[in-house]
Amino acid sequence: MRLSELSEQSGVPTATIKYYLRERLLPAGHRISATRADYDGSHLRRLRLVRALIQVGGLPVATAREVLSHVDDASLSRTIRLGAALWALPHGPDPDDAAPVTAAARSEVDRLLGRLGWTTAQEIGELSPAHRSLVASVATLLRLGYPCEADYLVQQARLMHQVAVQDLDMMETYPSEKEQVESAVVATVLYEPLLNSLHRLAQEEESARRYGL
Amino acid sequence: MRLSELSEQSGVPTATIKYYLRERLLPAGHRISATRADYDGSHLRRLRLVRALIQVGGLPVATAREVLSHVDDASLSRTIRLGAALWALPHGPDPDDAAPVTAAARSEVDRLLGRLGWTTAQEIGELSPAHRSLVASVATLLRLGYPCEADYLVQQARLMHQVAVQDLDMMETYPSEKEQVESAVVATVLYEPLLNSLHRLAQEEESARRYGL
Repeated sequence: MRLSELSEQSGVPTATIKYYLRERLLPAGHRISATRADYDGSHLRRLRLVRALIQVGGLPVATAREVLSHVDDASLSRTIRLGAALWALPHGPDPDDAAPVTAAARSEVDRLLGRLGWTTAQEIGELSPAHRSLVASVATLLRLGYPCEADYLVQQARLMHQVAVQDLDMMETYPSEKEQVESAVVATVLYEPLLNSLHRLAQEEESARRYGL
Repeated sequence: MRLSELSEQSGVPTATIKYYLRERLLPAGHRISATRADYDGSHLRRLRLVRALIQVGGLPVATAREVLSHVDDASLSRTIRLGAALWALPHGPDPDDAAPVTAAARSEVDRLLGRLGWTTAQEIGELSPAHRSLVASVATLLRLGYPCEADYLVQQARLMHQVAVQDLDMMETYPSEKEQVESAVVATVLYEPLLNSLHRLAQEEESARRYGL
C-alpha cells in the first residue's frame, strides 16, 4: 500500500508517519519508483506499536528506538529478547545505595524470592529493573515505618505470578516470536495501567461488600 | 514531645515539619507555653503519611491536603470515606468522550463488570476514577487494534479481586477506622508500585521457566 493508505488504515497522519520514518522508528517501505514506496502489514503493525510506545506510554523517541531494536533482534534467545525489550521500558525508581535501610530491604526481597522459589529472579538479581524497583519500594516502606509483612508479600506475589501466567498464555497465541515479543511490550505499556484500574475497582467493590455503600 | 524530638523520631528536618504545619498538612501541636508546643504519636503517624503522599507519591500540596481532609472526615461512612480519600489520589487518564471508540469501550467494560458480578462498580459507574481510567485503557486498546479478550480480562480481574481481598484484610488489622483509611491511602501510594514490580518480576520468572534463560 502507499503512504496515504498506510495513514488511512492506521489513523496516523502522513506527517507523523514521515517523522517516524526519519527517526527510524518505522522501517522504510519497499521502493518501487523514485518517488513511491510500498508498505505492507508489517508496517501497519509496527506503526501501531510505535504509537502505543510514544503516544500512550509517553516514551521519548530514543527510548522507543532502543525498545524496538531489541524487539527486532532475532539473534537473542526468547527470554533475553523479551527481557531486553522490557528492561528498556520506563520502570520504578532504583534503590538508594547510600541509605542504610537499602541493605535491610535487599535481604527482605531475597528472603521473599527464596520463599517463592523464584530462582531466576534470584540469579538475575538487580540486573533486572523490576528487581531494583522492588528493593526500592520495600526500602521506602521500611524507611517510613510501614509494615512489610512477608506473608502478605508472598500471597500478593503468588497472585501476580498467576497474572503473569495469563500474560504469557495470551502472548503465545501470536504466531511468530517477533510478534510475541511485540505483544509483551504492548502488554506492559497498555495492560499495566488497565491492571491498576482493575485493582482499584476491585478494592471499591470489596469495600462496598464488607461495609456497605 | 517537642518539635526537635518529632524531627528526630521521624527523620524529617524541622524546617520541613514547620512547612507542613504552615500548609495545614500536619495539625498544630498542643500549645504548652507561648513558644512551645507538644506533639504526640498521632503527629508522628500523620507526618509519615504526609511524606508518603508528597515525597514518594509526588502529590502536590493541595492534593495531599484534600486526601487528608477525607481521611479525617469521620462523618462519612467507611466505604465513602475510603473512596473519597482514594479518589482524590492521582489516577489514570479519563476517557475521551469525543472519540467514537469510547462508546464501544464503555459497553465492553459494562459487560465485563456484569460477568464479574461487580454490582457496586456498575452502580457507581464513572463517578469512580478507576472506572473511568479502565474505560480509557480499553478504548486505547480498541483504537490501536489490540485484542481486548473478555475471557482474559475476566481472569485478570478475578485475580486483582483476590489481591484487593488481601489488601482489605491487611487494612483491618489496624485498630481504628481512621488508621484503616490511612493505611488504604498508603497502600495505594506505596504498594501499587510494589505490585507492578512483582508483576514484571513474575513475568521474567515465568518466561525463564518456559523458554530457559
